[in-house]
Amino acid sequence: MDRNAPIGVFDSGVGGLTVAREIMRRMPGERIVYFGDTARLPYGSKSQDTVLRYSRQIIRFLMTRQVKAIVIACNTASAYALKTVEQETEIPVIGVIRAGARTAVQATRNGKIGVIGTEATINSGLYTDTMKEMRPDIQVTGKACPLFVPLVEEGLFHDSVTDEIASRYLAELKSRFVDTVVLGCTHYPLIRSTLRRLMGEDVTLVNPAYETAAELEELLERKGLTCTGEADPEEKYRFYVSDLAEKFTAFATSILPDQVKETKKINIEEY
Amino acid sequence: MDRNAPIGVFDSGVGGLTVAREIMRRMPGERIVYFGDTARLPYGSKSQDTVLRYSRQIIRFLMTRQVKAIVIACNTASAYALKTVEQETEIPVIGVIRAGARTAVQATRNGKIGVIGTEATINSGLYTDTMKEMRPDIQVTGKACPLFVPLVEEGLFHDSVTDEIASRYLAELKSRFVDTVVLGCTHYPLIRSTLRRLMGEDVTLVNPAYETAAELEELLERKGLTCTGEADPEEKYRFYVSDLAEKFTAFATSILPDQVKETKKINIEEY
Repeated sequence: MDRNAPIGVFDSGVGGLTVAREIMRRMPGERIVYFGDTARLPYGSKSQDTVLRYSRQIIRFLMTRQVKAIVIACNTASAYALKTVEQETEIPVIGVIRAGARTAVQATRNGKIGVIGTEATINSGLYTDTMKEMRPDIQVTGKACPLFVPLVEEGLFHDSVTDEIASRYLAELKSRFVDTVVLGCTHYPLIRSTLRRLMGEDVTLVNPAYETAAELEELLERKGLTCTGEADPEEKYRFYVSDLAEKFTAFATSILPDQVKETKKINIEEY
Repeated sequence: MDRNAPIGVFDSGVGGLTVAREIMRRMPGERIVYFGDTARLPYGSKSQDTVLRYSRQIIRFLMTRQVKAIVIACNTASAYALKTVEQETEIPVIGVIRAGARTAVQATRNGKIGVIGTEATINSGLYTDTMKEMRPDIQVTGKACPLFVPLVEEGLFHDSVTDEIASRYLAELKSRFVDTVVLGCTHYPLIRSTLRRLMGEDVTLVNPAYETAAELEELLERKGLTCTGEADPEEKYRFYVSDLAEKFTAFATSILPDQVKETKKINIEEY
């Protein structure tokens, strides 16, 4: 295995760029190949079978780019596919759920944690199971928030409609006095200020992206896969999507200024 | 060509069932094979390339079911794919846009028409072009309403949030004094009462599903393809999807009581 090979990162669309950004900040020497499945998004309303099939195709694609490790930067795919694909794949694969769960368990003071995410992520129960494995007495309340992704994609970050929808979704978490909330979908950090205001200053909001980058760094060190070379700046970060490459470049540039030279469109169904 | 063969109807998901329902009402003798692309929906935020590729795969699948004609019961696919696939396909293919445009042009009194639909449908400009071909002096205002589909899928048919979003989307149409509005997405009839209330009683709301069924009937008669046989009731209506068959059956049964015996899931990427 080439320790100077790139890290593969994938998501259903742009959300996983927040995870890619944390990896860039923490490990500025590493190369990244990012894939966003913009032709088939969203994943959060689809079945486990379908999300697993899509994840396998993307992993086969990333393997053709000679990646040394893969980060599933999508909560839904982490919930539905990680357990299977990590057994099938020769290189290390990590998701975002374990990291998010660990941070929340460490952060809570009263043992009451809320998790918000897509229908698929919440229905999988994987955040709850993972946190209860770490600390059996924890109380976890999961709440699916299917309108958050479309509201974010419409750019309604600060809007009365987003406030109204968020206050409905969060009511149950508030009534259970959770002191920690996991942002279990990569879109949600973009409405963090709304969630912060509605939940109050005393509630910890956990963004699994930070901890996932830390877990990746530790994993690469343990496996002797930390990059030691100097990457060509033009080649360092490469972006692929299954649809709408230009729209992706525009959005990605807003999250990662100056890092997105171009985005290539591929036909993921061929993998 | 077997005149007793079924009619193929497809959509990105469940929305096209409103078109299937009109075909059933108008031509109760006809058999229907319905396909909903639930593994890759929505189409309205995707590119022309991708929607065309998906439409071709679905048409290849429907051809394996020996259909005698195909109805693209999705505005986005009608906008992006019809012109190309009708030239490639040996059997007749119709979409929903021509029928909707014709009804609107016939309905308007002041020559000012609004069209609401997905980003793709509105950006294609096909409703506008089609109406201007029919009547060059018509004034058409198109407005993309990307949040309507997620709001409908959340079941918020009668809700203050849907009211608020709809009043923002419709403001431009109202300011232009349109007297006719085309519901250019098959989900929108489900929030018809909200649209009706906001636009007022004097504005005609056009649902292209009715006129599409009429256009299909006329086409079958002209081509000598009207069904003359008696279909086995168990075989008459068949439903296929690319994901979540049980969820589809539940939703379809609410639109077509007693007509949906089962829904089969297929892998559309293989076609």
